[in-house]
Amino acid sequence: MADHSHPARPAVLGQNQYGKAENRVVKITRDGATHHVKDLNVSVSLSGDMEEVHYSGSNAHVLPTDTTKNTVYAFAKEYGIESAEQFGIHLARHFVTSQEPIRRARIRIEEYAWQRIETSGEGAHSFVREGRETRLAQITYDGGTWEVVSGLKDLVVMNSTDSEFWGYVKDKYTTLPEAHDRILATEVSGRWRFNWTEDAREMPDWEKSYEQIRKHLLQAFADTYSLSLQQTLYEMGARIIEHRDEVDEVRFSLPNKHHFLVDLEPFGLKNDNEVYLAADRPYGLIEATVLRDGCEARIPVDLTNL
Amino acid sequence: MADHSHPARPAVLGQNQYGKAENRVVKITRDGATHHVKDLNVSVSLSGDMEEVHYSGSNAHVLPTDTTKNTVYAFAKEYGIESAEQFGIHLARHFVTSQEPIRRARIRIEEYAWQRIETSGEGAHSFVREGRETRLAQITYDGGTWEVVSGLKDLVVMNSTDSEFWGYVKDKYTTLPEAHDRILATEVSGRWRFNWTEDAREMPDWEKSYEQIRKHLLQAFADTYSLSLQQTLYEMGARIIEHRDEVDEVRFSLPNKHHFLVDLEPFGLKNDNEVYLAADRPYGLIEATVLRDGCEARIPVDLTNL
Amino acid sequence: MADHSHPARPAVLGQNQYGKAENRVVKITRDGATHHVKDLNVSVSLSGDMEEVHYSGSNAHVLPTDTTKNTVYAFAKEYGIESAEQFGIHLARHFVTSQEPIRRARIRIEEYAWQRIETSGEGAHSFVREGRETRLAQITYDGGTWEVVSGLKDLVVMNSTDSEFWGYVKDKYTTLPEAHDRILATEVSGRWRFNWTEDAREMPDWEKSYEQIRKHLLQAFADTYSLSLQQTLYEMGARIIEHRDEVDEVRFSLPNKHHFLVDLEPFGLKNDNEVYLAADRPYGLIEATVLRDGCEARIPVDLTNL
Amino acid sequence: MADHSHPARPAVLGQNQYGKAENRVVKITRDGATHHVKDLNVSVSLSGDMEEVHYSGSNAHVLPTDTTKNTVYAFAKEYGIESAEQFGIHLARHFVTSQEPIRRARIRIEEYAWQRIETSGEGAHSFVREGRETRLAQITYDGGTWEVVSGLKDLVVMNSTDSEFWGYVKDKYTTLPEAHDRILATEVSGRWRFNWTEDAREMPDWEKSYEQIRKHLLQAFADTYSLSLQQTLYEMGARIIEHRDEVDEVRFSLPNKHHFLVDLEPFGLKNDNEVYLAADRPYGLIEATVLRDGCEARIPVDLTNL
Repeated sequence: MADHSHPARPAVLGQNQYGKAENRVVKITRDGATHHVKDLNVSVSLSGDMEEVHYSGSNAHVLPTDTTKNTVYAFAKEYGIESAEQFGIHLARHFVTSQEPIRRARIRIEEYAWQRIETSGEGAHSFVREGRETRLAQITYDGGTWEVVSGLKDLVVMNSTDSEFWGYVKDKYTTLPEAHDRILATEVSGRWRFNWTEDAREMPDWEKSYEQIRKHLLQAFADTYSLSLQQTLYEMGARIIEHRDEVDEVRFSLPNKHHFLVDLEPFGLKNDNEVYLAADRPYGLIEATVLRDGCEARIPVDLTNL
Repeated sequence: MADHSHPARPAVLGQNQYGKAENRVVKITRDGATHHVKDLNVSVSLSGDMEEVHYSGSNAHVLPTDTTKNTVYAFAKEYGIESAEQFGIHLARHFVTSQEPIRRARIRIEEYAWQRIETSGEGAHSFVREGRETRLAQITYDGGTWEVVSGLKDLVVMNSTDSEFWGYVKDKYTTLPEAHDRILATEVSGRWRFNWTEDAREMPDWEKSYEQIRKHLLQAFADTYSLSLQQTLYEMGARIIEHRDEVDEVRFSLPNKHHFLVDLEPFGLKNDNEVYLAADRPYGLIEATVLRDGCEARIPVDLTNL
Repeated sequence: MADHSHPARPAVLGQNQYGKAENRVVKITRDGATHHVKDLNVSVSLSGDMEEVHYSGSNAHVLPTDTTKNTVYAFAKEYGIESAEQFGIHLARHFVTSQEPIRRARIRIEEYAWQRIETSGEGAHSFVREGRETRLAQITYDGGTWEVVSGLKDLVVMNSTDSEFWGYVKDKYTTLPEAHDRILATEVSGRWRFNWTEDAREMPDWEKSYEQIRKHLLQAFADTYSLSLQQTLYEMGARIIEHRDEVDEVRFSLPNKHHFLVDLEPFGLKNDNEVYLAADRPYGLIEATVLRDGCEARIPVDLTNL
Repeated sequence: MADHSHPARPAVLGQNQYGKAENRVVKITRDGATHHVKDLNVSVSLSGDMEEVHYSGSNAHVLPTDTTKNTVYAFAKEYGIESAEQFGIHLARHFVTSQEPIRRARIRIEEYAWQRIETSGEGAHSFVREGRETRLAQITYDGGTWEVVSGLKDLVVMNSTDSEFWGYVKDKYTTLPEAHDRILATEVSGRWRFNWTEDAREMPDWEKSYEQIRKHLLQAFADTYSLSLQQTLYEMGARIIEHRDEVDEVRFSLPNKHHFLVDLEPFGLKNDNEVYLAADRPYGLIEATVLRDGCEARIPVDLTNL
């Protein structure tokens, strides 16, 4: 912070960032009659030498957020969208290297998947939106080092058996009965950090990496006989670390989507793990980081706000 | 309305209905190590001889909404959930035939689909929630006649070409340029009414009917070279009427999810139908009923509130 | 429907309507340094002679939805926004009288209220958005007769006592204990229909009418010692009918926002109507129309979708 | 992390926390016929010696999330709810001091305000929910030091004049025209950290502090002639630091809710800063911390996810 801009007031500026959020860009690539779609929601966040705009309102260092929006659309044409991560790398590099006051750029991207509608016609330009999860990518660049964190949210999974919960601490407020066969369901929010950090190294294959991590995550969820949601979380993270060399850190936020076995005895019926009430609130919330041994944690602790 | 209950006031009771809404019931069926899931959100709405509870607060004719909730869970055990429609039929029949003051029951159901997670293990009890659309069913019964309306919502589809819009009326407020190659995208909300109305006739195969209607709807969307979203809507409805004898009426509410071609000329770039901005609001909203010739329309006009 | 447009297919067109939904218009009126705000969300829906656009895709009768959007913004300048109802009347009259194929227009408006921020400065141009409820207006015109239905949604109210629920029907699925002092809470969705229908009669004062109806509705909720939510609903409607001559019909959709008394006995504590769990789903849903004696019901039965 | 629990795998556990989220508790306090309401959404998050539950599924150190829920409701009776902050302090202290493996507790609370409905009756037990903003509190305790961060979200404010934006950087992607009289509107999300950290010091008056900070925040927004949203943000933070000794740090996340002046010239109309289109996405997003000089920043950078 330059001395000349410090106000004669007790309140000083700390970390700050700005940009245009939620730029919805759809890119159609035409391979003859066969079209391909990339559908992104891109948020730009810039920081650097920005004291004056806060203290006096001078915009002399400020590239307008409207310009960052324009850049997103222009780059979709200039570079195409090979992957969300690659697209974010183009954008982050541009902002940091083209504007002297901007020292750091962070690009956050949501990606929505589309599935082809099979038809008898010759063309292939019809799509139905997949709704299973939203893919995420965050690219941060300071002019020297890259940090890429990818992830997903809203992936809802359920095991209808092979889950127990017992042997826990009991205090004076404990009323929960132990469970030896319960439904385990959660809505996965996950982030994973790549160890690719410099231009000199070869980039991961971002598309393949996502597909493989999603597969390992689902299979770890399905294969784990679970004594606690924490155990399942660790297995999901460990499976990714063990199979994907490009990833050093994984963090999950897993709401325990409670499915309560309904008491049907008042109606003379036996509920043999058949009929459940799916509850909304409150819910258990299990969050943890799984690290490659020896690596440092860098993904923020709170993926959600609660 | 019984005379004795008419208040000595200028305000009289009109149509009324009550019940428990959004009962979330999950039913697991175990076929050895292979499990099956039905995941429903069930809303019960009852009407009948209910003047007194409004005029004086007497609950003598009121089956509590809490009881209607209990009935949903008990019936999931007693009858299972073969299909949303069949489950709703059991419930509606019960309320109308077991309580004299209740003359009409309407059951509304949302169904969420789950896909099996493939694993190397022997069991088959792991699932990931499909997010593409929500399946809908509404069953109404008055003790004599059935009305079954099924449908879906949140099915997002896109054609990246084969859509035009021109030749429209131009008044003093018209500025829109004509389009000869545009993206056509919508989020389908649809309802279709079955001509099955009485117990004496054989019921449709509800599961197969849904699957086939969804297929015809998607293919009509994909196959239609569109000069207006209205034309596409009619084709989607007509295709269902023509292929599915069990359906007499279809209604769609189709928001035109505008994808605007971004002007890249200020940046010296040509946008050859490649880069689009996906807009939120405002949006065109196209709604219409398609009927089997000679049949009466019974599905309400407004599927959404706008 | 003109014969020439009937397709040689078993599927025929039924009711249809189209327009631009959710046009967000903010109008600032400057009275010297004192500014006034009107903040609306306007949805236009038109119908008429529209067979061809469905059957063949000909847009010869179609005023583009983009034009209807432009008209909303132009009319905010040309007529100002005195009230949502008056603004909708200008729009509906324009569409029906200026385009021959358009026979009916329906304008739906949401209005968001803003409160002035008091400052020591001279100007009065700072506002904080009130969030208590959304005001609604629907104006329908067919070239001869007007129908105006106003209303509100998302008005959450609670009585912390003076509510009971007992004396109800008990069947084999009933487990609910009777309650002699409970919380009664709901999120009011209401609509009221005006008896003003023709230009020759003087219009109601729309702004005053809304303010008075809101006041009567709240006071009826607060004053009623309630034996059922149905009784409270009727009192709210009857109070409006009795005090506001301009209204002939009221309909409410009232979710019973359950507040369950928490059982604290396992912890050695007595819960003397002090600590409640506010539940989300399921919820009771109570819906009814209250009419001025002798008047016809015209407001659709389902204000919400469940 | 104890050696014995380290798995013979490359993946190790990092930061982790768990608890029950979104416990909805409503507390009624009866002062004769006058009732008072506190309406909270409480989320508990605990951490400590939790390796085994992740590595092996042993729950020997795990107090169930269901117990943390019960504790919330029991404490509402045992301690009452004087303020969200005080309530969170009771809860955090309990979890850390009563369970040896739990070393840190974080309580997050949302509070919803209710306004009394004035009636002619004697009682005062009727309320309408205020919707203007949600009040927030976060209390963290590690057995020695307290951290209290309060805040709010969803507070929407607008200045209809006294805002400009010009003098910014222009690159090849810049098309935005400069503005010398624009609407400035935002939806304030703010957090402020108290310098109260130890039991030995007297606590702030949490209720009065909130009320005063909200007032200063609104007046700073209203009084600032704004050359950039960053300048307004800094003024809002500085005003709080200058007037409220109990606060050392403020962070804001301010979406620039764009109100675009509509071009009415195609319709022969002049738009003299009267008619605006309120846009949804994309939006500028301005975020910054304002600190008391010499104090350290501790509030996380990202209050929202974009």
